[in-house]
Amino acid sequence: MSDPTGTTGLTAPRPAAVPAPDFSGWTCPAPLRDQPCVVLGHGGGGAMSAELVEHVFAPAFGGPALAGLGDSATVTLGGARLAFSTDSFVVRPLFFPGGSIGDLAVNGTVNDLAMSGARPAYLSCGFILEEGVEMPVVARVAEAMGRAARAAGVEIATGDTKVVEAGHGDGIYVNTAGIGVVPDGVDIRPQRAVPGDVVIVSGPIGLHGTAVLSVREGLEFGVEVESDCAALGGLVETMLDVTPDLHVLRDPTRGGLAAALNEIAAAASVGVAVQERAVPVPAAVAGACAMLGLDPLYVANEGKLVAFVPREHADAVLAAMRAHPLGAEAVIIGDCVAEHPGMVVARTGLGGTRVVDLPMGEQLPRIC
Amino acid sequence: MSDPTGTTGLTAPRPAAVPAPDFSGWTCPAPLRDQPCVVLGHGGGGAMSAELVEHVFAPAFGGPALAGLGDSATVTLGGARLAFSTDSFVVRPLFFPGGSIGDLAVNGTVNDLAMSGARPAYLSCGFILEEGVEMPVVARVAEAMGRAARAAGVEIATGDTKVVEAGHGDGIYVNTAGIGVVPDGVDIRPQRAVPGDVVIVSGPIGLHGTAVLSVREGLEFGVEVESDCAALGGLVETMLDVTPDLHVLRDPTRGGLAAALNEIAAAASVGVAVQERAVPVPAAVAGACAMLGLDPLYVANEGKLVAFVPREHADAVLAAMRAHPLGAEAVIIGDCVAEHPGMVVARTGLGGTRVVDLPMGEQLPRIC
Repeated sequence: MSDPTGTTGLTAPRPAAVPAPDFSGWTCPAPLRDQPCVVLGHGGGGAMSAELVEHVFAPAFGGPALAGLGDSATVTLGGARLAFSTDSFVVRPLFFPGGSIGDLAVNGTVNDLAMSGARPAYLSCGFILEEGVEMPVVARVAEAMGRAARAAGVEIATGDTKVVEAGHGDGIYVNTAGIGVVPDGVDIRPQRAVPGDVVIVSGPIGLHGTAVLSVREGLEFGVEVESDCAALGGLVETMLDVTPDLHVLRDPTRGGLAAALNEIAAAASVGVAVQERAVPVPAAVAGACAMLGLDPLYVANEGKLVAFVPREHADAVLAAMRAHPLGAEAVIIGDCVAEHPGMVVARTGLGGTRVVDLPMGEQLPRIC
Repeated sequence: MSDPTGTTGLTAPRPAAVPAPDFSGWTCPAPLRDQPCVVLGHGGGGAMSAELVEHVFAPAFGGPALAGLGDSATVTLGGARLAFSTDSFVVRPLFFPGGSIGDLAVNGTVNDLAMSGARPAYLSCGFILEEGVEMPVVARVAEAMGRAARAAGVEIATGDTKVVEAGHGDGIYVNTAGIGVVPDGVDIRPQRAVPGDVVIVSGPIGLHGTAVLSVREGLEFGVEVESDCAALGGLVETMLDVTPDLHVLRDPTRGGLAAALNEIAAAASVGVAVQERAVPVPAAVAGACAMLGLDPLYVANEGKLVAFVPREHADAVLAAMRAHPLGAEAVIIGDCVAEHPGMVVARTGLGGTRVVDLPMGEQLPRIC
């Protein structure tokens, strides 16, 4: 039933009450008019996802939402400064080396909150279950969520379950939303990157994407890799203890390090210069990527962060990260520069440079 | 591909990494062990949904979550007392008389917050799109969400989009989560119902369920009914202006008024006595229900609330409700009583009584 080319429409008959497509009432300008259907790339976290937000969701939802969509928002409510974030999880398969959709659902939203410097506190949980999924599988996912929540120090406070007919889901989809308090004096967001900032990554990249690929049907390639799925709230607290003046934090999930760095470069109108040799790529990830024609910079991570840190604090922040179990292999991978604003450039091992583009669509569908 | 009996398993092959069902590691006791697969009823908001929460989710997630699951939770964060709630929306078809999945997604979560007395403030929005859904349909849903949010006075602050392959979704699923501030002195929850409380419903029941059914494929029955889908935050504020001492508010969605009253009766260990003739059932709803063999008490509403109000405030609260457009047809339908704790009893027009049970599973699948 899968249609990776995205050229056919829905296979199910359209319900009677859904009107025929009518572009006349649609405010979205080109280029989405030329893409009349949703394709997998719109969920890939790259340029197509950004286009969907910019041309469809942001105009519909109104002004202030624009900045926050696709990321965590910082809002003030009842006198408290809160981070608020959501993610849906559709990873396939549900269980993979090093984790499950349940671990992802907790850690993904916890990390989105932590990337604004917030201390994650409460999660909501919405299940969309497919009729026929085995109850013990649901229980195992729920148990993984409970364990992950306790490990991250958050509470699952509210929830909802919907069931759809067999053939209209894929076992289990999970949405989580989360809230946490942003400490006073902390203002961490992509727009704060400035030339001179040092770019640090908290450890080896590409493990989550490679782990999921290694167990995909038809893609087994004999690599022993575990997902890096983990909650980063504690690591961020360690970094904030050094200085509250961290400029940017980002967890490079869908679209990998390349997408994260491109989004930051675009948001702050700065350039990012990466020393390609400095980026830690495990041998197993490199091997799998070579076999499949992938670039490790674009492969998803679920327990790593990239930080833009003022140069004067960089050594101390790096030392603090290395003293934390989830940052033991943290390294400096490059700098924020004034040249080529909006662009990420990698200096290759051979002394040349290459542009690291924002990925267009979906390199690895349904990775989270 | 639909399998309404729920007796077969998933139609798709199980991914290699999903382990075979293994009840030995499963903490859930009977009776769910005898229901090895998820069926539509588990998403119906009735007894089967409650069993799933009680036996699977609550033990996995841990203690404090139990009370909040399936409803809004009240949490204290950064010194603020907040309501936090989530719902996923899988209604079929996406558009129906009086609304769409977009209106439901905003109003459903706004109403969950309002039922704790909170002033709804911010929503998150997570889309799970099926590859192939027409982009103008996505845009129309987003526009409906934007309009509904502005009407309800809330801001969609953060979002996420995932895309699944054709045949693994049903056009558009939407999750929303929401946060709002609970005013000082307000403590509205099902446990606070006490004998002597007056039970008020804000208007005619059954309109949403009937409207959706009227356009379901194969179920057109020529009834002109519009969904009552609406945001109830303003009506609740009007009621709180009379007295902050409202005991219980509930929006009778899935499972209808019967499920809402049963949940309250069970939570507070009180009885509920309803005068059946006092319950406002529009003629079109009564006619559709008679034709389909449904009971209007079990049909979903999306813009109504039921309130348990101390007797001394009941007249003033009722008058305030009737002065609000969304409460113009509010009426007293019964009382909270000390007899038959945990049970809802209706006094019928003929002078008899009947027990109004908690629905078991799903009377009308995918109604919201």
